Amino acid sequence: MTRRLTAALGVLLMAATPTFADEGMWLFNNPPAAQLKAKYQFEPTPDWLDHLRLSSVRFNSGGSGSFVSADGLVMTNHHVGADDLAKLSDEKNNYLRDGFHAKTRDAEIKCKGLELNVLLAIKDVTNDVNAAVNPGMAPADAFKARQARIAEIEKANADEKASVRADVVSLYAGGQYHLYTFRKYTDIRLVFAPEKGIAFFGGDPDNFEYPRYDLDVCFFRVYNGGAPLKTQHYLKWSAAGAKENELVFVSGHPGRTNRQNTVAELQYLRDTGYPYLLQRLVRLEVLLSAWGGRTAENMRRAEDDLFSIQNSRKARLGGLAGLLDPKLFGRKVADEQRLREFIGKSMNTDVKAAEGAFAAVEKAEKVRAELIRDLTLLENAAGFNSASFGIARTLARAADELPKAPAERLREFGDARIPSLKFQLFSDEPIHEDIETVKLTDGLTFLATSLGPDHELVKKVLAGKSPRDRAYEVVSKTKVRDPEFRKKMFEGGKAAVDAAADPMIELARLVDPASRAARRRFETEVEEPKRQAHSALAKARYAMDGDQVYPDATFTLRLAFGTVKGYTEAGKAVPPFSTMDGLYARSKELGNTGPFELPKRWVDRKDKLDLKTPFNFVCTADIIGGNSGSPVVNKAGEVVGLIFDGNIQSLVLDFIYDESEARAVSVDSRAIVEALRKVYDADALVAELTGKK
Amino acid sequence: MTRRLTAALGVLLMAATPTFADEGMWLFNNPPAAQLKAKYQFEPTPDWLDHLRLSSVRFNSGGSGSFVSADGLVMTNHHVGADDLAKLSDEKNNYLRDGFHAKTRDAEIKCKGLELNVLLAIKDVTNDVNAAVNPGMAPADAFKARQARIAEIEKANADEKASVRADVVSLYAGGQYHLYTFRKYTDIRLVFAPEKGIAFFGGDPDNFEYPRYDLDVCFFRVYNGGAPLKTQHYLKWSAAGAKENELVFVSGHPGRTNRQNTVAELQYLRDTGYPYLLQRLVRLEVLLSAWGGRTAENMRRAEDDLFSIQNSRKARLGGLAGLLDPKLFGRKVADEQRLREFIGKSMNTDVKAAEGAFAAVEKAEKVRAELIRDLTLLENAAGFNSASFGIARTLARAADELPKAPAERLREFGDARIPSLKFQLFSDEPIHEDIETVKLTDGLTFLATSLGPDHELVKKVLAGKSPRDRAYEVVSKTKVRDPEFRKKMFEGGKAAVDAAADPMIELARLVDPASRAARRRFETEVEEPKRQAHSALAKARYAMDGDQVYPDATFTLRLAFGTVKGYTEAGKAVPPFSTMDGLYARSKELGNTGPFELPKRWVDRKDKLDLKTPFNFVCTADIIGGNSGSPVVNKAGEVVGLIFDGNIQSLVLDFIYDESEARAVSVDSRAIVEALRKVYDADALVAELTGKK
Repeated sequence: MTRRLTAALGVLLMAATPTFADEGMWLFNNPPAAQLKAKYQFEPTPDWLDHLRLSSVRFNSGGSGSFVSADGLVMTNHHVGADDLAKLSDEKNNYLRDGFHAKTRDAEIKCKGLELNVLLAIKDVTNDVNAAVNPGMAPADAFKARQARIAEIEKANADEKASVRADVVSLYAGGQYHLYTFRKYTDIRLVFAPEKGIAFFGGDPDNFEYPRYDLDVCFFRVYNGGAPLKTQHYLKWSAAGAKENELVFVSGHPGRTNRQNTVAELQYLRDTGYPYLLQRLVRLEVLLSAWGGRTAENMRRAEDDLFSIQNSRKARLGGLAGLLDPKLFGRKVADEQRLREFIGKSMNTDVKAAEGAFAAVEKAEKVRAELIRDLTLLENAAGFNSASFGIARTLARAADELPKAPAERLREFGDARIPSLKFQLFSDEPIHEDIETVKLTDGLTFLATSLGPDHELVKKVLAGKSPRDRAYEVVSKTKVRDPEFRKKMFEGGKAAVDAAADPMIELARLVDPASRAARRRFETEVEEPKRQAHSALAKARYAMDGDQVYPDATFTLRLAFGTVKGYTEAGKAVPPFSTMDGLYARSKELGNTGPFELPKRWVDRKDKLDLKTPFNFVCTADIIGGNSGSPVVNKAGEVVGLIFDGNIQSLVLDFIYDESEARAVSVDSRAIVEALRKVYDADALVAELTGKK
Repeated sequence: MTRRLTAALGVLLMAATPTFADEGMWLFNNPPAAQLKAKYQFEPTPDWLDHLRLSSVRFNSGGSGSFVSADGLVMTNHHVGADDLAKLSDEKNNYLRDGFHAKTRDAEIKCKGLELNVLLAIKDVTNDVNAAVNPGMAPADAFKARQARIAEIEKANADEKASVRADVVSLYAGGQYHLYTFRKYTDIRLVFAPEKGIAFFGGDPDNFEYPRYDLDVCFFRVYNGGAPLKTQHYLKWSAAGAKENELVFVSGHPGRTNRQNTVAELQYLRDTGYPYLLQRLVRLEVLLSAWGGRTAENMRRAEDDLFSIQNSRKARLGGLAGLLDPKLFGRKVADEQRLREFIGKSMNTDVKAAEGAFAAVEKAEKVRAELIRDLTLLENAAGFNSASFGIARTLARAADELPKAPAERLREFGDARIPSLKFQLFSDEPIHEDIETVKLTDGLTFLATSLGPDHELVKKVLAGKSPRDRAYEVVSKTKVRDPEFRKKMFEGGKAAVDAAADPMIELARLVDPASRAARRRFETEVEEPKRQAHSALAKARYAMDGDQVYPDATFTLRLAFGTVKGYTEAGKAVPPFSTMDGLYARSKELGNTGPFELPKRWVDRKDKLDLKTPFNFVCTADIIGGNSGSPVVNKAGEVVGLIFDGNIQSLVLDFIYDESEARAVSVDSRAIVEALRKVYDADALVAELTGKK
């Protein structure tokens, strides 16, 4: 029905009206009051908003979470906590795979390097920041003056002793600057995690699909002064859970959207960028699947790469499907037309300044299309696909870059980045010769067939050998897999690198001039002109619509809202809720193997469970990567769910909101409680969440 | 060591000398006598050759075999017999999956539509055929006159009553014509087949790999007048089996090689054809794997397509690796250079006629590269990937073509082809809507991203919808999946098709003008000029080297020879033999699941087997597809093995022989006997093979 409505209203109406769809990743200091009132007759009070904001938590590792008890208990996704679970695991305890449960507070384990932030206040400092810039300044000077003023504001508002962090964030592509002050917490302890087999039940085949059956949840506790944090702001648990057609809210940290992309940029992605990337992804997926299929140890070595490739492949396919949908694309075209007309008619010189912006972006995208092949092959090193080549190039470049003045270096060799660069470079993560040879053979084959084997660079790279023989030669002879050798090269600089004559480093050196040339052209003819054009467009857009539009996502706290409802896919109704019996049915259907194998505990406890318990559900709220772990709350501010994914159709939300089929996918709060009680015997945790024994 | 030798000898020497490598698919009337004498001091007698030829059997379904007892027992591969096993299976008995064993002759089952041929005699009729052609004739008239003479010769030599079949075969691309007379047998009964799980152990991951552990064998018996054929010519079983470094022979029917491709054709394949095809194959492999992974029923629907895609992907990757090997490619360049010089210096007008041939082929290959996209998308229907579209197009074209005079029709609608076209078109093989929608969505996406969504044809095809919505629409609304509807359309012609207005047929009609235009250009600017050029080149090559070179494979009987020996792969020695304990180790290593799951019988009988029994082995003999099922014999003409595959490196044999790493893969005769005895209790069969109880 929704679908028919969208089609009937047509493109122009959709584009020209302030939208009352469930659209938007709204700032907490500029909530969608009009939309909520008009569509849902709901008016959030300032207290309601403050409470939700102060109950929301940002994981500095890249996800979202929320306080769910007065004792500092924090809920997020298993996949947000996965990094920490892996760091806490050792040869005896694999918490990532097997789960973890601290039955008492003594048993909670402190995480390594995990920082949580809570947003205390937002202040608009746009005028203050802009006052630092004089109209007559050259762009480079203006940039420096602005950065200096931002640094001053941040310094004046941060308070390390009180654990207060201050960030000036840029919104609307530079149209506004806001000061965000956070309380930061660094003593975070692990409380509970289920097995990966239930947290990520269905693996790649079910990733981005719906219905789902995932208990993608993980609990941490914030400590302060060695004791659990006492917090006034935490979310209460809903006894009833979510209902179909109910209004719900999502408070979290969407990472990045590209909704202000111009049509030229979307065309580039649709016609060039995504198809090219997808070709590469499917090629690598087949390479690693086939090689991984030959032995169990091969698969162990390949599976991390393979999962991330499969995840990207699904995400890009979903994005491409959206870009190829004329309804969605037509809306972007109409949106842009409205802005072009506004700029055309405007008398404001700031707005007029955006007049050439569309053409500048279009020109940049043409260069981008010209460069995609060389940039991918060389600077992104797809032609040399291997960890060894990446290390070798870093060593080769470090020898060239570090003697230069900091301002003259490639940005990854900037002084501030050296510590993390060394941390990565000297890590003793194992690198296996066999998979390196397989990947590099494929990379060199891709290089040779992309440029042609008679291309001068290809001939030099292959040195008269076949891709396979050349890959075998450099991989078997290089020493870059030895961290000690890497230290020696990094510290010894150019003289050490020259003396070593390592074949992989020499290969990296051979390719470097062409690689740097492609990168330089991309930076000067694509990145910089687009940055300037988007800044001008953002100002014009702001002049047109004011802050009644939300800014693109920037990993700052946002409020989204929507309705719990299913959708229609290829003529079939997909219901909003899955249930626990669906989990068992799906596992059985797939032979209870691979990603569909249930953890033993779930097999043993099946009889104890109420199999009608809602497991996962979907809603129309506007989310994107970074929202993982966000609480889903009802009008009373009670937890009804936990965001962990979007469906395939939601992958277009990078560019455009669409409520016909795009859905956010959550774990139902009732499933969390049912599982904690009946599968994990976690009664104390349930009591803490629900306030009931 | 071989490898080093090849490199040391260098390109020119390799190319300029009559080769004494184990190269060649030799005619039985022109065996490699000089090579065998020089390298192996072996001189096969005419009787030796006749006996081997008369013991060799051609399967008209596309494979090779041999008589292995005086009672008409024929040995071939399980995968050659697979079609027959499937045809004999029903809901109760799945012989393809579970195997078959007739303990007595009464229990042997008669096959459906299987014809075996034995080559009785070869006669050179080149002069007779060429005498039909006058030098002054126009090419089309010459073609007709030659075909008429060939038909006369065949008619004069065939004898249906005596089951003698006569074929005039064209060799050296028309340089020679030979009359082949065959005895044909049509009462063929199934005797023994193992389970598919052991015949194709390792599935796709191990396909084209080595070491292998496959019992890819199947036995049939030829009956004549209702009784087992008594045959004087059959191969005796070797008691000792093959030894490392032993000279062996392969007698069989290689299907097709392209060794006379010019460098321009190889460059086309290397730089354009193979990379383009591989992109498509990996795309489809990922599509079907991902969709198949979602449910067991999905996988059942996808697995046939998936296997054939994976098989092609491996084959093409192997071919591409060979083309990208400068050593191999350099040999092709040098070979061509020698021929170019010979033509340049020749005074013979027939040879001189080839002077423009290289340029003509090069020009044709340029057109081929220009056409690859449109031809693939439209005429090969990659942009409409689905069985339904194929059917719809056949119906649309039949309505256009059948009213025309036969000579004016597209060749697949020629009178002689109509019966098999109808047989296929009206088959009631199930076609599932879900996989059709998935495949068509992907096809339309490929079309839209290849041509651009603003291309006029793409806009018409998508009709304002996204690829997914459009695919769903036409697949769900078409009736072409109903065989009755297909009959009605085929018989009703254009009027019926017009009246039906079926959306899939209408889609096929929409695309047809562009599709036919691409095909026409390919036929006139690529196929025909290449056919003429190759005929001229073949004559020149024949004038240069006479019949001391073997002709390209044409599914006629050939003799190959080689040495049982291992090779070196990425620095590792690969031994020539695998053993039975390796089978169990490999199954265990891969968790005894999927293609590595052993049939129950092999698990139960493990203790009875001598696990040191050689299982598979490799040799340097020159083989290609069609050789499947060929016997491998020793100097005494005794069976030591059974060809069933080539390794990855052998995939270059399509273009060039290489003995450094390319190997033919065989089942060892000792493994066959050991398995028949200890796993299958087939003592009578063993006694028949070995002549011992």
